[in-house]
Amino acid sequence: MTEVYRLDQIEDILNQIDVVSAIEEGFVSYSQGKAVIPPVGELLFEDPPGDAHIKYGYIKDDDYYVIKIASGFYQNIDLGISPSNGVMLLFSQKTGELISILLDEGHLTNIRTAAAGAVVAKHLAPAKIEKIGVFGAGIQGQLQVKYLQSVCTCKNIKVWGVNQKELERYQQTMESEGYHVETTESAAEIADTCNLIITATPSKTPLLTKDQIRKGTHITAMGADTPEKNELDPAIIQSADIVVADSIAQCTERGEIHQSFCRNLVQKDQIIELGSVIASPSLGRSADDQITIADLTGVAVQDIQITKKVYEGLSSK
Amino acid sequence: MTEVYRLDQIEDILNQIDVVSAIEEGFVSYSQGKAVIPPVGELLFEDPPGDAHIKYGYIKDDDYYVIKIASGFYQNIDLGISPSNGVMLLFSQKTGELISILLDEGHLTNIRTAAAGAVVAKHLAPAKIEKIGVFGAGIQGQLQVKYLQSVCTCKNIKVWGVNQKELERYQQTMESEGYHVETTESAAEIADTCNLIITATPSKTPLLTKDQIRKGTHITAMGADTPEKNELDPAIIQSADIVVADSIAQCTERGEIHQSFCRNLVQKDQIIELGSVIASPSLGRSADDQITIADLTGVAVQDIQITKKVYEGLSSK
Repeated sequence: MTEVYRLDQIEDILNQIDVVSAIEEGFVSYSQGKAVIPPVGELLFEDPPGDAHIKYGYIKDDDYYVIKIASGFYQNIDLGISPSNGVMLLFSQKTGELISILLDEGHLTNIRTAAAGAVVAKHLAPAKIEKIGVFGAGIQGQLQVKYLQSVCTCKNIKVWGVNQKELERYQQTMESEGYHVETTESAAEIADTCNLIITATPSKTPLLTKDQIRKGTHITAMGADTPEKNELDPAIIQSADIVVADSIAQCTERGEIHQSFCRNLVQKDQIIELGSVIASPSLGRSADDQITIADLTGVAVQDIQITKKVYEGLSSK
Repeated sequence: MTEVYRLDQIEDILNQIDVVSAIEEGFVSYSQGKAVIPPVGELLFEDPPGDAHIKYGYIKDDDYYVIKIASGFYQNIDLGISPSNGVMLLFSQKTGELISILLDEGHLTNIRTAAAGAVVAKHLAPAKIEKIGVFGAGIQGQLQVKYLQSVCTCKNIKVWGVNQKELERYQQTMESEGYHVETTESAAEIADTCNLIITATPSKTPLLTKDQIRKGTHITAMGADTPEKNELDPAIIQSADIVVADSIAQCTERGEIHQSFCRNLVQKDQIIELGSVIASPSLGRSADDQITIADLTGVAVQDIQITKKVYEGLSSK
């Protein structure tokens, strides 16, 4: 009998399970070639504009396979409903039976993306984080910071944005949760004061230039997930000491690394896959003055892992 | 709020809705280029062997988009559970919201396939059907005959199979529903006595040869859905008066027509798409002595249509 869980149940269980470790294990399986992940399925809509993506696959010798659907319809905001939506389906890898449906409305996609940021920081962030710089005052800008708390104690945030109202809302929300938040419209100010920077915008033009980046800075770039989007000057990737991709295959086709790769500023053998860094931490940051970059485009293995973990938590209650 | 419907509710509503007309309309939209249908997603499993397929898409200017998952794990039979499984998801094309989940366990895939057989017979079967010949005594062999009743009144069935027990079970089930059923292990006997033939087996070697086919016969071939499977001698397609494909794009890559096409026995411009025949019935059977063949490989537009129709029926109750 298929178990169906709604968003409130899913949100409850998230406080009781270790998503970050599950995502970390998933990246290792992925980089070791143990995950079967076909190309992403895509549907595009014109009127109103929207998109739906199907990410799916399984880890060999596991019990499950997972199909995740996530959509973005940005004009939903005018209707007062969430632009993002989604559902995660967990099937038996042994019989094909549909074990569980998580009606997460896109929330677990946000969470698994934020958890990947924490995994990255664990292996690449400088030992002492002065201040966390956040580009983008949306939901991911909040979640990335919250999930970082599993790997660092810094509560000082500087958030960059172009919409004053959104910045104030971010400040208010995060301060109510115990963070100290400054807002800015100056990217240089972020680069000058923060040594852990998260970019979480849909920008199509670079927000940071190479000259702005101080030694010892780590940047997690997760906003760009298409071939067009671009948050970092491609020269930043070129000059970084360590460049990490959640998936080398995906990051050479879309996102920040893609922008450098297609300009021949970085070669494939200069990119390290996140799962390899987790399995061999010596591939991660080894000195305080290194500049490290991680590019996250989102891999189905994250969906597989979070779906399993949430289901196991809910079904054992 | 996503509405979730279980198999018993879905089976109930099927008696109250006109699936055949919905499938017929879907094929017309498809052949008129109004359906957006990306390539099928596929997952293959080795131990135990199994497969899962994702068919999805939408009809332009419609309200919905649909994602269908169907799987086959044939060793399930040893466990006493159904080898086929599945679920159909109905989303809003305007907001991306997940409107409804049909926990059909693969049943609607069987139904939409049988309904396509009825659509085909409506346009290609001879005016007077002497006897319906069925290759394959499985669930599809039953459903094809039942759905034919919406377009013809013939109750005389001759069923071919290799498993005597399965043949007897078929006979028993169908006779209890008012059919007169003979069983046979001779393909020639089917060809000699039946002028509407349905092939619904997973055979990889032809069951019928060209010389066996009498003038005036119609064959609906729906068993072969991979490049390897093959139920009809390729020469039958070559010499038929009318060759219809549910999808020309799919049928030149898999199924019966594919077997003739890759041997250069039939050209693309000799194949008529089912939606075109429905829209222009003069493309269908025009004389009693014609030999007509329809090859059904299964198109996502069928899943889109049956999901919509079942949802509309259930939600208006």
